[in-house]
Amino acid sequence: MAAFDDATAVRPRGNGTTFDADISENWTIGPGRPNGGYLLATVGRAALAGLHAAGGDQPHPVSANVQYVASPEVGPAVIEAEVMRVGRSASQVRAVMRQHEKTTVEATFIFGRLHEESEPFWGGEPPPDMPSEEECLARRPAPGPGGPFGGGDGPSMRTSIQQAFDPDTSGWMRGERTGKGEFRAWFRFADDRPVDPLSLLFVVDALPPATFDVVQTGWVPTLDLTAYIRAVPAPGPVRMRFRAGMIQDGFVNEVMDIWDSRGRLVAQSTQLAGIRV
Amino acid sequence: MAAFDDATAVRPRGNGTTFDADISENWTIGPGRPNGGYLLATVGRAALAGLHAAGGDQPHPVSANVQYVASPEVGPAVIEAEVMRVGRSASQVRAVMRQHEKTTVEATFIFGRLHEESEPFWGGEPPPDMPSEEECLARRPAPGPGGPFGGGDGPSMRTSIQQAFDPDTSGWMRGERTGKGEFRAWFRFADDRPVDPLSLLFVVDALPPATFDVVQTGWVPTLDLTAYIRAVPAPGPVRMRFRAGMIQDGFVNEVMDIWDSRGRLVAQSTQLAGIRV
Repeated sequence: MAAFDDATAVRPRGNGTTFDADISENWTIGPGRPNGGYLLATVGRAALAGLHAAGGDQPHPVSANVQYVASPEVGPAVIEAEVMRVGRSASQVRAVMRQHEKTTVEATFIFGRLHEESEPFWGGEPPPDMPSEEECLARRPAPGPGGPFGGGDGPSMRTSIQQAFDPDTSGWMRGERTGKGEFRAWFRFADDRPVDPLSLLFVVDALPPATFDVVQTGWVPTLDLTAYIRAVPAPGPVRMRFRAGMIQDGFVNEVMDIWDSRGRLVAQSTQLAGIRV
Repeated sequence: MAAFDDATAVRPRGNGTTFDADISENWTIGPGRPNGGYLLATVGRAALAGLHAAGGDQPHPVSANVQYVASPEVGPAVIEAEVMRVGRSASQVRAVMRQHEKTTVEATFIFGRLHEESEPFWGGEPPPDMPSEEECLARRPAPGPGGPFGGGDGPSMRTSIQQAFDPDTSGWMRGERTGKGEFRAWFRFADDRPVDPLSLLFVVDALPPATFDVVQTGWVPTLDLTAYIRAVPAPGPVRMRFRAGMIQDGFVNEVMDIWDSRGRLVAQSTQLAGIRV
């Protein structure tokens, strides 16, 4: 089993709406701190299983909204899926993760059916111009002093994924910010598990805060994240572009777009985060 | 009392978390069909009152996510507010609207404190270049044959607000689409009630689908809408820009940005909607 599927596995209890999960230390952004997108994907897997238990047949998340209510932890978790509506073309499910009897994550999902070879009827945006994955990997900066995306020992999601930054947007790792508030990177799972709609729920939150390219601050905690999954990715790595919008009054919005290896826009997300400047 | 405040009023029951509301026919987009943003603002008012009853002191919504679970109706509604977390700088509340014992709207809110004179520390975008409100009003196209934004008799939100389209983006009302998928308009309440953070929850959903400038379809129902309120608007009308993103595989994403009379970005929203082309 691929590492991502193992880490996001959920085990149904008898009622079909309650699931047990084990939040893994291999998908963290710091000691004991699970990545938010990893939690969203895990909760999404439970929501999808809950939908199927309730007779819904949609296979793909098409939208997700998540709130982090309390600090999630590595270790056991219980997820309750509440199917709000089973529809013909779209179904809605709410899911809540509890750890130590405390709600840590709340999310709502819309599930639908995406068709593999879909193309835009109108609109969409081509992927950004950036060097090939090989070139980005070859020009990878030396790991910095610890932290989720630099060096450091111990387990973290760094070892579960392979991310190659566009060299033009990797200066922040050496403390050289461009001030543009934009990161571009290639992404694939370390074990080459295909990127599919469910795992895109993780990928949309797998870059450091885009504000790190603007100003040095402490962590920039996500308050609210919304993701739209627009297509089933073609095989191969995906391209990510993460952009800060406006930093004002303690908040920042950040927008992620993801394209597949064929250049199709497959996911979009927006988040509001807290920031102290 | 201003019409908007009257229409979004909520009356607490004894427990402080249950509220009664009356969904008004004066804020509809068609006979008996309440506008989605109007519902979001009403639910938001109950969520805010629930937060204050629970000891939270934040005055402003800073983010909101809403799901329309079943068709909402004009008439009585019950709203339950569940305070998920009372924090120092941000608090989270979930609220559910029920009509005839059935859940019609589910929403989650983050409340915070926005400071009146805030300016961007970084980023943001200036308002679009468009004619003055007076010029847009003067060049208003003749009402079309019925529908929420054209002519038609009977009560609707058309009479509660004053919206003036940029003439460059009003051709769709005569069936002349530009294909750009963008609407720009000035907005104010008909009774000149100030636009404040709570009422921005309504304004973010107060334009017709931006896809109407691309392709003629039936209604384009919102599946998921997320709004970020970024600042307390200065007095006067606000400018709205609503843009379609990508139409693909039965779904479209649309992005709204709103600026106040001083040109400050005060609200942002994104929605995923269903579309049949």
